[in-house]
Amino acid sequence: MDSFELQSPPAFDPAFCARLDELFAWRRDVRRFRDAPLDDAPVDELIALACRAPSVGNCQPWRFVKVKSPAARAAVRASFAACNRQALDAYEGAQAQLYASLKLSGLDRAPVQLAVFAEPDPVAGHGLGRATMPETVVHSVVLAIHTFWLAARARGIGVGWVSILEPENVTQALGVPPAWRLVAYLCVGWPEEEHLDPELVRHGWQARADFGRFVSEV
Amino acid sequence: MDSFELQSPPAFDPAFCARLDELFAWRRDVRRFRDAPLDDAPVDELIALACRAPSVGNCQPWRFVKVKSPAARAAVRASFAACNRQALDAYEGAQAQLYASLKLSGLDRAPVQLAVFAEPDPVAGHGLGRATMPETVVHSVVLAIHTFWLAARARGIGVGWVSILEPENVTQALGVPPAWRLVAYLCVGWPEEEHLDPELVRHGWQARADFGRFVSEV
Repeated sequence: MDSFELQSPPAFDPAFCARLDELFAWRRDVRRFRDAPLDDAPVDELIALACRAPSVGNCQPWRFVKVKSPAARAAVRASFAACNRQALDAYEGAQAQLYASLKLSGLDRAPVQLAVFAEPDPVAGHGLGRATMPETVVHSVVLAIHTFWLAARARGIGVGWVSILEPENVTQALGVPPAWRLVAYLCVGWPEEEHLDPELVRHGWQARADFGRFVSEV
Repeated sequence: MDSFELQSPPAFDPAFCARLDELFAWRRDVRRFRDAPLDDAPVDELIALACRAPSVGNCQPWRFVKVKSPAARAAVRASFAACNRQALDAYEGAQAQLYASLKLSGLDRAPVQLAVFAEPDPVAGHGLGRATMPETVVHSVVLAIHTFWLAARARGIGVGWVSILEPENVTQALGVPPAWRLVAYLCVGWPEEEHLDPELVRHGWQARADFGRFVSEV
């Protein structure tokens, strides 16, 4: 990253902005991975970029755990299976059928798996900016995850964010400090296919609304 | 956005990735804005892009409120002033002096101000993916904010995320549904200056650590 240090501010031209917009549009939550390995080096590059994300008070609360051991992966898969079964039980009829047909994680084949935690009360940052909104610490970790995700997609690497998990089970299974808060479990690898529309739109679970619906003025 | 619909998946080349990395590196939390207006049109374009962010179950829980009325802006500034005074009181000696010298928001001059809320229990998404981790709804809004931020910076527009606020005061002052959760208050406009290093690094509040400190393996 130090190659940036002496540069003057970049000006991003309209062509770059158009490509960036395409990146936002084509970034997908990937659940179908090719059976191909992904080295540590590109993953470390992505983590280094993720650590460029903004954080409240510059407290850098992100903690990345590469989940490699078969035992740890099995524990995560078991948590997903239990939570997914419970979730299915909460639906009925056609919606239950549709839910059961969705592929909601790539835990089966993703070559790289990362658990991303927040250190909820980091010394770094000295509390700045989080006295009245302490949730900004966890939000900083979300910003890092999103940075990782976009940078990965630009390199052709797919990322899937799995949230159908019992956070405490995962925290325990990975043996991290019990105070750490699980923010995301990421499946990372080479996607089998690329899509512009989200899987949940394509399979009729939830359509996208026009952005105007989400804007008001005061 | 519909211009994307018929395209085939883009391949992003190394030159784009390098520019994207520069964007991550130069995106700053901006607190010093030029005294120049910013139209609604580019802001709406940025909000539309933000709504391309991933959301749990595709529930699209983001709610953007353009804060334009002088009364609403005054209420937000008052909340910031009170919270910032309280925060200062919690520091002592040299740290208190340093804190007092920091400029922590652009509320005084940002031409555009946006309060970004989460609808905490949206009908959309039908609960998918958030049974065991309901905080993913708010996290989805954070992803939209980050998308807005990056797209803005690429266009030369600065964004500052203000969190030194009492969320309930802001929610009340803006007259939004009381169940909505304030995620961020954004100051948006043309930055006075561009920096590679975060303001809190430059002024000696909190240095950045090497990414390797944040990675482990299991």
